[in-house]
Formats: sequence, structure tokens, C-alpha cells
Amino acid sequence: MDKSGISNQTLKRLPIYLNYLKGMSEQPPNVSATTIAQALSLNEVQVRKDLASVSCGGRPKVGYPTGLLIRDIERFLGYDETNAAVLVGAGNLGRALLSYQGFAQRGLDIVAGFDIRAEAEAPLVGGKRVLPMEALEGVVRLMKIPIGIITVPSQAAQQVCDQLVAAGVRAIWNFAPVALRVPPHVLVQNESMVSSLAVLSKRLSEKLSEEESGL
Amino acid sequence: MDKSGISNQTLKRLPIYLNYLKGMSEQPPNVSATTIAQALSLNEVQVRKDLASVSCGGRPKVGYPTGLLIRDIERFLGYDETNAAVLVGAGNLGRALLSYQGFAQRGLDIVAGFDIRAEAEAPLVGGKRVLPMEALEGVVRLMKIPIGIITVPSQAAQQVCDQLVAAGVRAIWNFAPVALRVPPHVLVQNESMVSSLAVLSKRLSEKLSEEESGL
Repeated sequence: MDKSGISNQTLKRLPIYLNYLKGMSEQPPNVSATTIAQALSLNEVQVRKDLASVSCGGRPKVGYPTGLLIRDIERFLGYDETNAAVLVGAGNLGRALLSYQGFAQRGLDIVAGFDIRAEAEAPLVGGKRVLPMEALEGVVRLMKIPIGIITVPSQAAQQVCDQLVAAGVRAIWNFAPVALRVPPHVLVQNESMVSSLAVLSKRLSEKLSEEESGL
Repeated sequence: MDKSGISNQTLKRLPIYLNYLKGMSEQPPNVSATTIAQALSLNEVQVRKDLASVSCGGRPKVGYPTGLLIRDIERFLGYDETNAAVLVGAGNLGRALLSYQGFAQRGLDIVAGFDIRAEAEAPLVGGKRVLPMEALEGVVRLMKIPIGIITVPSQAAQQVCDQLVAAGVRAIWNFAPVALRVPPHVLVQNESMVSSLAVLSKRLSEKLSEEESGL
């Protein structure tokens, strides 16, 4: 929980609700927390609480007008605004993020990629230019880009982070498995596959050993 | 927290410590929680607690023998064992994961990728074959693969999940932004970029509006 009173866990579930609501083959006029919870195998109390924190259109026994709920979630998540970002490190993961069409609909516009191996002709990846590192600071400053996405190898991540911070970004989305040092005015969100894998592997081995021991 | 008494947050930090320890240019004979906390800008009490939960080699004022600490963390994370996995969906993200060299060192062996558009000659991606979907069930059953990684588009994810579960996987690492329905004996770990982006965007907009309002 933080000042806005909404937890990261709620924030992470909101795009899932949205995906469900927008993906319904026939959109009903109203939808209840119960329906959503059942469809997504989630806890009903949790869904009810999540929805109430972003929309005040819910009515007992009726639920939320579907269109209104979609609009309220989208507005809450800021899909009606757009944040610009640059991405540094156009390896496989970087290229996957540059090519991912879903970000634009969700308020993230990756304006360009940067890579130490970028060529002079700046090839297009997913419709985005991959520019040489020398251009990074100028682009970030000129366009007042608030977000830097780091998809370089671990050993290069801190240096890239320093360059992004020096150029003025206010948030770093970090995919390198290292803890970055940033000044207090910069947000860091870490997205480490290796860290997630550690959680998955450990939970799986616990589950399997519980079963072996007959628990 | 769960039965093993270790939180997901601790599990996620362990690979970061390991990365720091193994990346030191000159490895000292001993290393303390204080040193690690300072180097990684983390809370010292937290680091101390994390290390104590995986290694009993720490001594007051001295710290941990560096080599022992590395071995204890690796053993705890299961890097000395290997879990096999299959990956379904060889788009950009799928190819990024297939090509990522870091997984093998961390106990995850992705034995093959599968894709509805796989060609008969099964091209190599990052040294792995991408096979047609028809081969999925047979490979998972035959090799008793415990982990399925889902990197297909949202609308295909549940069907792929059902196929993986039917073939016998015990854990799903899900990169599609949907809530998957699985039977209770199957673990799901969700890794939604879109959900993470929602958290990042919201936190950034809060930070910026706090500053505007002079808080």
C-alpha cells in the first residue's frame, strides 16, 4: 500500500479484469464481481474490493454497467494518457518488448531502442528505430522522456541506468538481474526473469517434496 | 510466507545477492550483510535476515566465508539440480526466453519450444528446436517435463495451459496477461508485462503529481 491507497497486487489484477471484460464474446449490460471472480478463478471478496477501489458505479445485486467499468479501469490505469519511453539493449528481450503491440494500447509508447551495436542506418524492430547509444541522451532530453527500459546484460545495467538518470528519466523499468542505484527522485521497477524463476523453482520443489512425503 | 518459511521477496533477492557475489572483481575471503546491503542499496536488516535463512556460516563481525555463502545460496535456489521445461509460443518473447543463456546456469533447461507455426524442419532458436504443437503432449509425457512456459497470445493461453496440464506438467510459468484455470495440483506463476507496466505507470504518475502539488 502507498499513498494512493491501492496495492501493487490490485494494480496487477486490474489489467486482467480489463482483458476479461473486453474479451467477452457478448458483452452483458451489467457485470458483477461474482461473475468476474468465477470466470477468472479469483477470490470474490478481493475482486469486489479491487473494483470498488477504481469505480463507484457498482450496485448491489446488479453489478457494474460493463462499459462504465471498462472505462473506469482504463482511466484509473492511465490508458487514456500516454507515457513515452526509450529502451536500451536491443537483444532478444529488448526486441520482444519493442515489438509488443500491447503496450501502445496501454499507455506506453516506446519511441525508440538504443544499442551499442546499432548500425548507422538504424534498422526498424517492431516499427521502432534502434539507434546508437550516442543518441540516447539527446533524445531523452529533447523529448523529455520519463521512462527508461533497461534490457542490457547485467554488467552494463548500472552504467546505462546512470546515463538515463543523467538525461532526465523519472522511472526505470529494469529487466537486468541487478539492483540498480538511483537518486531518490527516480522510481525503479525490477522485472527479473531470473528472480521469478527462483520463486517458481523453489515452490515447485517444495510442492513435489510435500507430495513425496505424503503431506 | 509459506511452509518453507521463506518469502517470495527473499527468494527474489537471493539471485541478486548471488549475482553481486559472483561478479566481484576480487572476491574477499569473507563478506558481511552490511557490505552486500551497501553495495546493492538494500536494507541491511533485510539482507542479514535473508542470508541467515539460507546459510548458517555467518559469524559476528566477520560475515560469511564468500565461497560458502555462494554455494549455500546456489544450493538453496536449486541451481545444482535441473528442472526441465517446454515453452509454447515462439514469438518474440518466446524466442527471447529460448535464447537466454542465464536459465541453464540457474537450473532451468528449456528442452524445446512449440509453436502452431513451426515448420517441418524445426528451426533452431538459441540452440533449441521449435516443434509443431502436435508433438507437445508426446514430448512432455515421454520426458516427464515438470514445467510449461506459456508465451502465446492471451486468447490461446488457456487452451495451451489445458494441453500442458493434460500432458502432466506440475508448474506453469505464464507470460500471457490472463488468469489461467488449473487443477489444485498445478502451480501457476504469472509474469505479466502488462500488469507490471500498470504498476510502473501508476507509481510514476503519482510521483509526478505529488511533486506538482509540492508534497
